[in-house]
Amino acid sequence: MSVTAPQGFEAAGVATGLKSTGALDVAIVVNRGPRKIGAAVFTTNRAKANPIIWSQQVIADRIVEAIVLNSGGANCFTGAFGFQTTHQTAEKAAELLQVSAGDVLVCSTGLIGTGDEVFRGRVLDGVERGVAALSADGGQDAAAAIMTTDTVAKTASVTRSGWTIGGMAKGAGMLAPGLATMLVVLTTDADLEAVEADAALRRATGVTFDRLDSDGCMSTNDQVTLLANGATGIRPDLDEFASALTEVCRELSQKLQQDAEGASHDITIVVTNAESEADAVEVGRSVARNNLFKAAIFGNDPNWGRVLAAIGTTDARFDPYDVDVSMNGVRVCSAGGPDRPREEVDLTPRATLVEIDLKTGDATATILTNDLTHDYVHENSAYAS
Amino acid sequence: MSVTAPQGFEAAGVATGLKSTGALDVAIVVNRGPRKIGAAVFTTNRAKANPIIWSQQVIADRIVEAIVLNSGGANCFTGAFGFQTTHQTAEKAAELLQVSAGDVLVCSTGLIGTGDEVFRGRVLDGVERGVAALSADGGQDAAAAIMTTDTVAKTASVTRSGWTIGGMAKGAGMLAPGLATMLVVLTTDADLEAVEADAALRRATGVTFDRLDSDGCMSTNDQVTLLANGATGIRPDLDEFASALTEVCRELSQKLQQDAEGASHDITIVVTNAESEADAVEVGRSVARNNLFKAAIFGNDPNWGRVLAAIGTTDARFDPYDVDVSMNGVRVCSAGGPDRPREEVDLTPRATLVEIDLKTGDATATILTNDLTHDYVHENSAYAS
Repeated sequence: MSVTAPQGFEAAGVATGLKSTGALDVAIVVNRGPRKIGAAVFTTNRAKANPIIWSQQVIADRIVEAIVLNSGGANCFTGAFGFQTTHQTAEKAAELLQVSAGDVLVCSTGLIGTGDEVFRGRVLDGVERGVAALSADGGQDAAAAIMTTDTVAKTASVTRSGWTIGGMAKGAGMLAPGLATMLVVLTTDADLEAVEADAALRRATGVTFDRLDSDGCMSTNDQVTLLANGATGIRPDLDEFASALTEVCRELSQKLQQDAEGASHDITIVVTNAESEADAVEVGRSVARNNLFKAAIFGNDPNWGRVLAAIGTTDARFDPYDVDVSMNGVRVCSAGGPDRPREEVDLTPRATLVEIDLKTGDATATILTNDLTHDYVHENSAYAS
Repeated sequence: MSVTAPQGFEAAGVATGLKSTGALDVAIVVNRGPRKIGAAVFTTNRAKANPIIWSQQVIADRIVEAIVLNSGGANCFTGAFGFQTTHQTAEKAAELLQVSAGDVLVCSTGLIGTGDEVFRGRVLDGVERGVAALSADGGQDAAAAIMTTDTVAKTASVTRSGWTIGGMAKGAGMLAPGLATMLVVLTTDADLEAVEADAALRRATGVTFDRLDSDGCMSTNDQVTLLANGATGIRPDLDEFASALTEVCRELSQKLQQDAEGASHDITIVVTNAESEADAVEVGRSVARNNLFKAAIFGNDPNWGRVLAAIGTTDARFDPYDVDVSMNGVRVCSAGGPDRPREEVDLTPRATLVEIDLKTGDATATILTNDLTHDYVHENSAYAS
């Protein structure tokens, strides 16, 4: 499990005081080779945190030796001092690992605006002790160290045809596309070229993390990274690899959804018979972001009118009076009118399925989201305190 | 006050049982002339309720004799039967008023999917009794009859240069642009041509109702109508008229904001020094729709990082590291970094001011919104029950 499941990776998680609870808060993952391939996708938010600005430079040559991640502070909107902190973090890791700082990615997560001298000192201390603690069993500690409001560490792995993919993720709020808001590190001992790693990563994230939208809010610090070292010497079938990577990403996506802040329902929105996949995604996201729909699900109310109202705000091709909507298997709306009585729908289970049939084509897409709850409001109003 | 403030308008509100409480639920407003000018703007939601589909036809010739409005059921997604109900509502009013059904607007508000035979019977009964109850003092009853979860009836009026504008509005949730989600009727005894009424209405709604965004959710039933009868015989200065109409619309918008479901803060977001008004509006709306920002304000937390994260999702021209943000007069963020301590911000008053300086031009826009609260979630999860 986790990022040390494949051969040739070491990881560690240490506690530096960034978390007031004394929990693990700095993680490091090192690729021991032989190859040092890296690929990454970043938040599309134009307000990017310092680690994102740094990491986008690091990934340009597609060579990555290590990645340092901290919780307890996003180092975003912290000025020139904050960028220097990120730079020093990479320099410190590079010095200890005897690699180039330009091959060390940095990720931070936590409150925006946090990145003062105390923060810097703790992160640098974490790098020093993290490198000292590196081990081939360190994946679980690393996964724990990146948790913020997460209630569980999130890891996954698959083994196929002699090679393995491992992964860890954190994220429990601010989850929305274009990347879902999260930090994810994926590792593999398959032997991939850089362009192959990049293509597989984009293919996998495009249908997994990019389709998780817990609250419509996009973060400043998102990053999903894939490190590939070819330690097995096995060149994978590229379709099989992309499929396996998608499976790991999907499992991590579901774990993020299931741990979303304050949620009481995990809602899967399946849009079928759309004219295009883009239409299906647009419709699913519009429903996923509709606060009235999300509050209704919280109250176990199969309010299909709010689903149709959300669909109506999109540019997708559909006739509002030809749409079917089912909730947990009961078709409550057919052809834009009432069908089965709402009393037949049991919304008490946490897992909730909403199916939307647009009847304009044969494309489909699945969007994952959560309900809007008292606890969501509470946790996010108290975040800074 | 209300729609009967200008000369030559009569109105009524009656109780038909659509509201289980026995409160007023059907309103009618009649223009006694001499002119019968009408202008209207409608929801841009593609999932349109039957009354919207009907009213868009009625307004085509810009002649309106009367408008019938009901609460207690949206008559949306109720199939052909629902459309016939709307048609019969207009026919019934036309017969009693001895006008053409094609000059009678219909508006409905309430739960989507509600529009059965019982609904039809009550609305038709309401038309009959409403016409019988018409009076030049009926504006307040009409305003009460269109309330749904509103806690107060919302009316406004201004008098200028010998003519008067009156108005009533309802709306307490699903308030979002392109039109804010609401029903509004405006009346005037000024003497306007149809194109002048239409231009003034669009100018006024564009900077008032269109900039109110309580929860980002767009309704299926929105309509804002202006009726003008020229009863004073006074041709208004068109700029003065548009300005007065904007004033009435702004007052009604603020009343909608102040009565938004579950809200504990009325948030005014002022975006200044944008490159264009469109940029300013986009930035303001993005912040207004950010659940994390809205939950933070609920918790009296001046979390400016969430403001910047929301701005970062827009296409507006700005440099994230050159933006200032003030909350209730305290500049908490300058040039994309922390400025005054957050402890200096007092967010306990209900009225909340967020100022965003983009520093890329000289355009400005103001967006009104509310916080995201426990009560919002509660009211909207229990809506159908």
